[in-house]
Amino acid sequence: MSEPIRVAVLGAAGRMGSTVVRAVQAAPDLELVAQVDAGGDPRAVADAGAQVAVDFTVPAVTEGNVHALVDAGVHAVVGTTGWTEQSLGRVRDRLGGAPGVGVVVAPNFALGAVLAMAFARQAARWFESAEVVELHHPDKVDAPSGTARHTAQGIAQARAAAGLGPMPDATTQAADGARGADVDGVRVHAVRLRGLVAHEEVLLGNPGEMLTIRHDSFDRVSFMPGVLLAVRQVLHRPGLTVGLEPLLDLGA
Amino acid sequence: MSEPIRVAVLGAAGRMGSTVVRAVQAAPDLELVAQVDAGGDPRAVADAGAQVAVDFTVPAVTEGNVHALVDAGVHAVVGTTGWTEQSLGRVRDRLGGAPGVGVVVAPNFALGAVLAMAFARQAARWFESAEVVELHHPDKVDAPSGTARHTAQGIAQARAAAGLGPMPDATTQAADGARGADVDGVRVHAVRLRGLVAHEEVLLGNPGEMLTIRHDSFDRVSFMPGVLLAVRQVLHRPGLTVGLEPLLDLGA
Amino acid sequence: MSEPIRVAVLGAAGRMGSTVVRAVQAAPDLELVAQVDAGGDPRAVADAGAQVAVDFTVPAVTEGNVHALVDAGVHAVVGTTGWTEQSLGRVRDRLGGAPGVGVVVAPNFALGAVLAMAFARQAARWFESAEVVELHHPDKVDAPSGTARHTAQGIAQARAAAGLGPMPDATTQAADGARGADVDGVRVHAVRLRGLVAHEEVLLGNPGEMLTIRHDSFDRVSFMPGVLLAVRQVLHRPGLTVGLEPLLDLGA
Amino acid sequence: MSEPIRVAVLGAAGRMGSTVVRAVQAAPDLELVAQVDAGGDPRAVADAGAQVAVDFTVPAVTEGNVHALVDAGVHAVVGTTGWTEQSLGRVRDRLGGAPGVGVVVAPNFALGAVLAMAFARQAARWFESAEVVELHHPDKVDAPSGTARHTAQGIAQARAAAGLGPMPDATTQAADGARGADVDGVRVHAVRLRGLVAHEEVLLGNPGEMLTIRHDSFDRVSFMPGVLLAVRQVLHRPGLTVGLEPLLDLGA
Repeated sequence: MSEPIRVAVLGAAGRMGSTVVRAVQAAPDLELVAQVDAGGDPRAVADAGAQVAVDFTVPAVTEGNVHALVDAGVHAVVGTTGWTEQSLGRVRDRLGGAPGVGVVVAPNFALGAVLAMAFARQAARWFESAEVVELHHPDKVDAPSGTARHTAQGIAQARAAAGLGPMPDATTQAADGARGADVDGVRVHAVRLRGLVAHEEVLLGNPGEMLTIRHDSFDRVSFMPGVLLAVRQVLHRPGLTVGLEPLLDLGA
Repeated sequence: MSEPIRVAVLGAAGRMGSTVVRAVQAAPDLELVAQVDAGGDPRAVADAGAQVAVDFTVPAVTEGNVHALVDAGVHAVVGTTGWTEQSLGRVRDRLGGAPGVGVVVAPNFALGAVLAMAFARQAARWFESAEVVELHHPDKVDAPSGTARHTAQGIAQARAAAGLGPMPDATTQAADGARGADVDGVRVHAVRLRGLVAHEEVLLGNPGEMLTIRHDSFDRVSFMPGVLLAVRQVLHRPGLTVGLEPLLDLGA
Repeated sequence: MSEPIRVAVLGAAGRMGSTVVRAVQAAPDLELVAQVDAGGDPRAVADAGAQVAVDFTVPAVTEGNVHALVDAGVHAVVGTTGWTEQSLGRVRDRLGGAPGVGVVVAPNFALGAVLAMAFARQAARWFESAEVVELHHPDKVDAPSGTARHTAQGIAQARAAAGLGPMPDATTQAADGARGADVDGVRVHAVRLRGLVAHEEVLLGNPGEMLTIRHDSFDRVSFMPGVLLAVRQVLHRPGLTVGLEPLLDLGA
Repeated sequence: MSEPIRVAVLGAAGRMGSTVVRAVQAAPDLELVAQVDAGGDPRAVADAGAQVAVDFTVPAVTEGNVHALVDAGVHAVVGTTGWTEQSLGRVRDRLGGAPGVGVVVAPNFALGAVLAMAFARQAARWFESAEVVELHHPDKVDAPSGTARHTAQGIAQARAAAGLGPMPDATTQAADGARGADVDGVRVHAVRLRGLVAHEEVLLGNPGEMLTIRHDSFDRVSFMPGVLLAVRQVLHRPGLTVGLEPLLDLGA
């Protein structure tokens, strides 16, 4: 068996970070060599000999952390939110001067959610109709969820690329809001229900048939397989990778 | 075995009426004695010796049909839409002068749909959250469906009777329509998808659990068990019965 | 506002017991007056002035606890498993000498699960076909679950009472196990899947329609509303009550 | 606009064949030039100038039809069942002598079903657990369905290719049949319910999450988009193509 991969966790005291710490400790092929709090110095991870650092800190510091890691030759897996096209571009530039170093930035590490989005996009061009229903706990402040919005946009792009027009919809008398939110021409419905966590359902319809792709997220441990997958693959993926999908080896 | 019940069908040439004709013919305990078109004379059914007439005609003539049937001492099972509190009240008055005669007027003969509504109402008081999702073919012009609206109203009444307040919902940033239509405080979402027929899902949530009640209607033959049930029971139910639920012997 | 109900918890250190402790502490109309470990003396709860005791101990001691509580005039709500017709009969006898004292023994306190079973039983007589699918985490040792077995038995009894014969099933070539387990003539299928907790789906079919009743249990907090309901009602329910359903005021 | 594709239908009087006839007539880019009964001479379609022939005949004649079509230089789209590795091999050989001619043989033309199988296979390697539930009308004689069996085999192959071992399952006390049929290590459950047509659900589980891929087939018109897709693509696909998946442009 080969040497374990040496891993550091930034934001180790947070809810996600501490879950990552436990997941790394439980994986036989990984070794936890450093834990740094969200405000801590990212250079500590290089001193500890880390090959890969996982960043679940806060939007205010994550970009700085990644630049420091790249400069130190440490690969990075980033789950912190708040990344923009601009901040991603700056990391891409920085990586230009660090050949061999890899960075994976992903908005969602639940493999099922990533696959659901990919499948929705692959299937969309083959169906007349497509709608998205997302269901969350009632403490969520935004509707629809970012994942549902992103899924709808993927469907809309796939339909446009295939030359599909608007979906059939004869509705002429609708109560306000009944038909959901319009995201690039795809209807998205947001349910809020005590007891739920995070769930998404993509419904695709053709004459005589329906295809449903549903993802249920019950617990944040669902992110761990995706985080560990990224840790293992980032070593062999120089440059910037956005989203987990390229790691999933889809297609055929 | 007892004599078969003698049944007439009004509106026998229509889509629903002709399906009823076939269902009556196939039932060993029923005998079809008359078929009348939507515009035909309802008194023909009494001449044919019918004990029960099933009316699937059109809103413009159904009330007149029922009055004529009651006067002739023929029990009636009515699936035609368009009944109001006023027209139901006039039938109730007419029945006052025809002791022993029964009339069942039902907006929905699918037993599963009637049960789903009844269960949603029974369950509603025990849950913090409840929402309704209805899904139909894209040629439907109204949203939400009458059944979904009726289901939501039943939920709202049950919650009010139990002294429950508004459902939890922290949404502060919602895209227009994302949270569905508000029917008496219950959120209702309408999906329109090629390939579907008529489907309804009631979602009820408490901390740590969800109860889902779903009805799928794939074909109008789903109305036949309810129609035949009403035909058999109306003989023993003098007066006006609205909806199939009282025939289903729930409770216990 | 009236005085809070004084509540004791037996088995307070266990997983369920400690969850009950927190739920009682969080309820404004209840006051926690005693916590006793599974092996502790149940008479301590009377000394502490408890009106109701909740027992989540172990099969070996629960019956003795209940007898002691009844003798001390303390109402009991029991969630411990392992009760038989015989042990229930002995408690019923004991209650004969304690007028006014109530005991609720329930195998399942999740309101949604209790409602799902009740609805399945109410609906069963109206459908040609009914099957049960239960889904659990893969660490469960028995299949099907007790709840699914109980649900299937309720369906079978309701069908028998309504004079229904066997369900339609033309299967002649089946791989071993494909059609599930036969519980009193009702097919029950058990899915085991990492990530799940405890889920049950009852499927009822008629020509052209399907009614689905599904319960999802995500977390043991789902039992708390049922436990608190029983605590509040047992004061007004002398004698033995088995199962939560009589407390749910179903029917009509 | 280009010339319409000239299409013949073999087995035009059958249930599937007559549905294909109507679908071809309704498609503006296709022209129906011949209808041949199941026992008719396939060479008639070449005489009628057909470029593509669709075969929904019977197992006894379909292979002979395809050989005759290939010899006549007519492309073929085949939905008749009963093909084996041997009969497919003979067609492949025949096509060796007919450069440019294409044949598509597909066991299932419902795009949703084909996609569901493809997605199940793509996703399988990323999940600890996977099971298949198929649901059909109660007149079906075999259980599980061929599609479900095929889906399970695809899952098993993907797991083996990724080096995954057996799925977690602690079951030690199971009622006979409760855990379904074992298809290459994947559990498959077959539900039979009046009112259903053909439905399949693939459940994939990881810690804290579930991915569900479900296909509902309500009506045989659901096969038509797949048939027409094959008609349009077979012109540009010389040689033998088995299954619709290669036509769906998945991956990426």
